[in-house]
Amino acid sequence: MKNYREALTFNTPHRRDFVNITNQVRRALENSGIREGLCLVNAMHITASVFINDDESGLLKDYEDWLEGLAPHEPLSRYRHNRTGEDNGDAHLKRQVMGREVVVGVTEGKLDFGPWEQIYYGEFDGRRQKRVLVKIIGE
Amino acid sequence: MKNYREALTFNTPHRRDFVNITNQVRRALENSGIREGLCLVNAMHITASVFINDDESGLLKDYEDWLEGLAPHEPLSRYRHNRTGEDNGDAHLKRQVMGREVVVGVTEGKLDFGPWEQIYYGEFDGRRQKRVLVKIIGE
Amino acid sequence: MKNYREALTFNTPHRRDFVNITNQVRRALENSGIREGLCLVNAMHITASVFINDDESGLLKDYEDWLEGLAPHEPLSRYRHNRTGEDNGDAHLKRQVMGREVVVGVTEGKLDFGPWEQIYYGEFDGRRQKRVLVKIIGE
Repeated sequence: MKNYREALTFNTPHRRDFVNITNQVRRALENSGIREGLCLVNAMHITASVFINDDESGLLKDYEDWLEGLAPHEPLSRYRHNRTGEDNGDAHLKRQVMGREVVVGVTEGKLDFGPWEQIYYGEFDGRRQKRVLVKIIGE
Repeated sequence: MKNYREALTFNTPHRRDFVNITNQVRRALENSGIREGLCLVNAMHITASVFINDDESGLLKDYEDWLEGLAPHEPLSRYRHNRTGEDNGDAHLKRQVMGREVVVGVTEGKLDFGPWEQIYYGEFDGRRQKRVLVKIIGE
Repeated sequence: MKNYREALTFNTPHRRDFVNITNQVRRALENSGIREGLCLVNAMHITASVFINDDESGLLKDYEDWLEGLAPHEPLSRYRHNRTGEDNGDAHLKRQVMGREVVVGVTEGKLDFGPWEQIYYGEFDGRRQKRVLVKIIGE
């Protein structure tokens, strides 16, 4: 069995951002030399997500508006978590809707994807350095 | 290490449908010959889900109504994504609530399940051919 | 390839509870002797979740209130599922928001975590015995 680990680093310019990281994960897979296996990609921070969906700017804005409706950022007093001095209570909730991680099949050295699958980093409390783990096992 | 790959194909009769795929995944596992490992089952399309829950028709209808409340199909103008000519903006959101994938433990050649766990394909933009990936690694 | 399996058991005192299970998963990993691989942790019951987020009591209460808003427990008649004699229709929905499982990278014999990641068992229909599966593969 082979294994490979890489941490990707992000520092997004806005509080909320979506970043297509598919090519970075592809390069990690190429570096790993693994041909058959499973590839885990997860946010290492708890106010961010890794998810798979469409590379379409309108949809990404739809996600942002929808998540803001489900878990509004303001008023900050809405969340007990913000009494600790944080202002990111909403971000912890939004991340649960979008998910922490994806697991992708690796087949013949490629991410085993359907036609439109793209891996996204979803940031809900940005403007500081954060990491995404890529861990691949297989042979 | 052994690995196995199979793609299941679906073409549901309605826009939204839930299909119990547990037995299809079980057959894939039998075909794999893998006794200990992990089994990934994921929608290869971004308006569909794979999730684990109960085989109970009332609950499945509850899911449908609840998701329609969280991310209504209409008015189509609600979603920027639909300006691209699509009418499935809601389906991309519903899929995030229900999830893209499940990872199931494989123990002694069986899906390592609790008493009520069933694997479902959740379709939110059906009436066309779509696929689910089953990728199993282990020994 | 090595593999390891353990089932953790819970019987929470309230209908809804959150239990930090990080140390139990760490002990399972130590017992496994696995140094590099993937660790699956999943609820074996369909009205419970395993998720990763912050060990902060205010946030856990925020989750409880937020989920109650998204999928209220009452009136019981709100859910078709409750016509089967159950009263846990809401719990099946809440579990989908929070997720069934997490997959954690294993690196140098440790859970490969960011600074704040903690593994939680989320119970939405407690006061009875339930299990969580820990399945680790690697080498």
